Amino acid sequence: MLVTVRGRSQHYRTVAFDAARNAVVLIEQRLLPHQFKLVALPNFRQTARAITDMLVRGAGAIGATAAYGLAQGARAFHGRDLGKFSRQVDEVYQTLKAARPTAVDPVNAMNQVLAAMRAGETVADQQALALAAAEEFANEDVRHCQDIGRHGAKLIRSGMKLLTHCNAGWLAFVDVGSATAPMYAAQAQRKRFHVFCDETRPRSQGATLTAWELAQQGISHQVIADNAAGHLMQRGQIDLVIVGSDRTLGRTGEVANKIGTYTKAVLAHRHRVPFYVAIPLSTIDWNLKSGFDIPIEERSESEVLGAWGLVRARGAERRVPSPKRASHSALRTPHSALEYVRVANPSSGALNPGFDVTPPDLITGIITPAGIFKPRDLWARRRQLGGPA
Amino acid sequence: MLVTVRGRSQHYRTVAFDAARNAVVLIEQRLLPHQFKLVALPNFRQTARAITDMLVRGAGAIGATAAYGLAQGARAFHGRDLGKFSRQVDEVYQTLKAARPTAVDPVNAMNQVLAAMRAGETVADQQALALAAAEEFANEDVRHCQDIGRHGAKLIRSGMKLLTHCNAGWLAFVDVGSATAPMYAAQAQRKRFHVFCDETRPRSQGATLTAWELAQQGISHQVIADNAAGHLMQRGQIDLVIVGSDRTLGRTGEVANKIGTYTKAVLAHRHRVPFYVAIPLSTIDWNLKSGFDIPIEERSESEVLGAWGLVRARGAERRVPSPKRASHSALRTPHSALEYVRVANPSSGALNPGFDVTPPDLITGIITPAGIFKPRDLWARRRQLGGPA
Repeated sequence: MLVTVRGRSQHYRTVAFDAARNAVVLIEQRLLPHQFKLVALPNFRQTARAITDMLVRGAGAIGATAAYGLAQGARAFHGRDLGKFSRQVDEVYQTLKAARPTAVDPVNAMNQVLAAMRAGETVADQQALALAAAEEFANEDVRHCQDIGRHGAKLIRSGMKLLTHCNAGWLAFVDVGSATAPMYAAQAQRKRFHVFCDETRPRSQGATLTAWELAQQGISHQVIADNAAGHLMQRGQIDLVIVGSDRTLGRTGEVANKIGTYTKAVLAHRHRVPFYVAIPLSTIDWNLKSGFDIPIEERSESEVLGAWGLVRARGAERRVPSPKRASHSALRTPHSALEYVRVANPSSGALNPGFDVTPPDLITGIITPAGIFKPRDLWARRRQLGGPA
Repeated sequence: MLVTVRGRSQHYRTVAFDAARNAVVLIEQRLLPHQFKLVALPNFRQTARAITDMLVRGAGAIGATAAYGLAQGARAFHGRDLGKFSRQVDEVYQTLKAARPTAVDPVNAMNQVLAAMRAGETVADQQALALAAAEEFANEDVRHCQDIGRHGAKLIRSGMKLLTHCNAGWLAFVDVGSATAPMYAAQAQRKRFHVFCDETRPRSQGATLTAWELAQQGISHQVIADNAAGHLMQRGQIDLVIVGSDRTLGRTGEVANKIGTYTKAVLAHRHRVPFYVAIPLSTIDWNLKSGFDIPIEERSESEVLGAWGLVRARGAERRVPSPKRASHSALRTPHSALEYVRVANPSSGALNPGFDVTPPDLITGIITPAGIFKPRDLWARRRQLGGPA
């Protein structure tokens, strides 16, 4: 999507590949929203490190990063010995797989690249096929998000006020995003609307990443405290909710997503505000039989007990453009200026569940690349959605 | 309630009076939870300033501060001329009234003091009566909170998990608090329970003040993100919700309180978790006929776009006791160490409604000093509750 750097708007993908330098090129997401910076990773070990260090995050984005990383590692091999080449590729695969051991997307993406490589009879052939397959994986991710956008944009009318939670935007994919895709598509259709971004404590991805995306794209928006959406719905200020999902159960239509999603669904249900979940097909889990079987990660207490941000005092302002200038120039604030502040009482602990599960009766529809479905209809449509026979 | 300073637990009130020094003594609440400090205000102008600067906040607490401030100003008069004395008292009254012009509690409290003074025939008599009336106002605030605690404690059983939002604790009153009163009373009855403190963004009074109170009092508790309560209720982890209220409509039973209260009530209703509101009688509004008539203050965007906290980096740790030590010693961190960090995208704005309105159908009961009532029964019981005839 668009990013404005030094007054010029340009199109970027979250994950790209520089074939001439054999480098994976990522947006350094840990610096956002305060600084926009591209990082070219010169070898597969650094690519794996970037996944581990969360320089890149989001299912689609880390899938594409791993696919490119595998091609990068394969292309770094010099020689014609297919046996040695194959051992190198295996080492690259294992290294990238271990970069984020619980994530399924890197593995699926790399398996797709490996399968494509088999058609090559020489090292050079396989290297070329690996890169082509990685590019295809990334392009497919983008197409799927565009398809989500095409279906979802029909739900957005001019004048509407939308709510979204967390970041299911293009920064979590190769481009376009899932929950944001309908917004970007509606914008392209010249519809005018306003988006409330839930701050999304404790990690504040709504206030940081989603707000940054919408600002870059020139979409009208405001950040709200997670506490405010109920009041806004009560006063008729929200017409439509679109969120993403980390895992959607194909058998039940239950949706696991960032903590707080369930609360927004309950509120939307009470106020008869349509509540949609936008997902790529790869996040549908066709095996689990109940949302209660989804493990809910308990994350670090420190996330709840404090916040990361940019200290304004002590001359830091000079390094931070004013809000007005910020959208017109790349931010030059160094990462070191981001500080953790302890907000809570120093002797208190916290409980920090990372996700929650929203039942299908609270979900108006699931927006997929193949169309919009009622959550309980996913299983009946499983063939169409890439599910089991 | 109890505060542990340098290893010794001692009882403090939020607002007290040092008659020998003619000083109003307040807990400097802006330093909490990182530092516990008492401030002795030597004259009524500084007392008014403390109200304006939010060194003290909360209906009961600022009421008592104004009552003491009026007595303080009256006692500072030297001479026997009742006419001059009366003009001085009037100046004190107007100064304290102007300290927080929209608040009704300081005015009510001072009117009570003025009425008591009328019985005195000399300046010295009136000065003595003023102090006695201010003390009586403070003591009555404490008794009312204790009565709320006595009634509310019946709702708490050992083993329960409670949820509260924002700070309706003793720091908002002279002592004991409203939403916390049942907890402190239940603790005195040797019941054992656990309290989840909603962080309460954007100002985080739950993470700072309520968590500090419960820690000082030795009540088991954890801070949670405002997003987490829905998930916890869904998993059966919350048995009872008790919150405070800024204004309760006597005619309808609607409750205005900190933003996010309504959301918790909606969630509690869905999960059949009892939802109680604890209030002193002074916060019942017998005039307004609809919650939609309650003006919802829109507060500063900066509250949503960032956070106040203690920077840990750069050697600040030395000044901050570890969590374990923190409950056993006064924290010596200077106020200047509290920093505002910008969390959100620099070019994004925010919408920040400060309060919301919870309808009576979501409220199990209103805990008052006179007993627990269904919200719709307040009007029928208005005589008992100090309402109109």
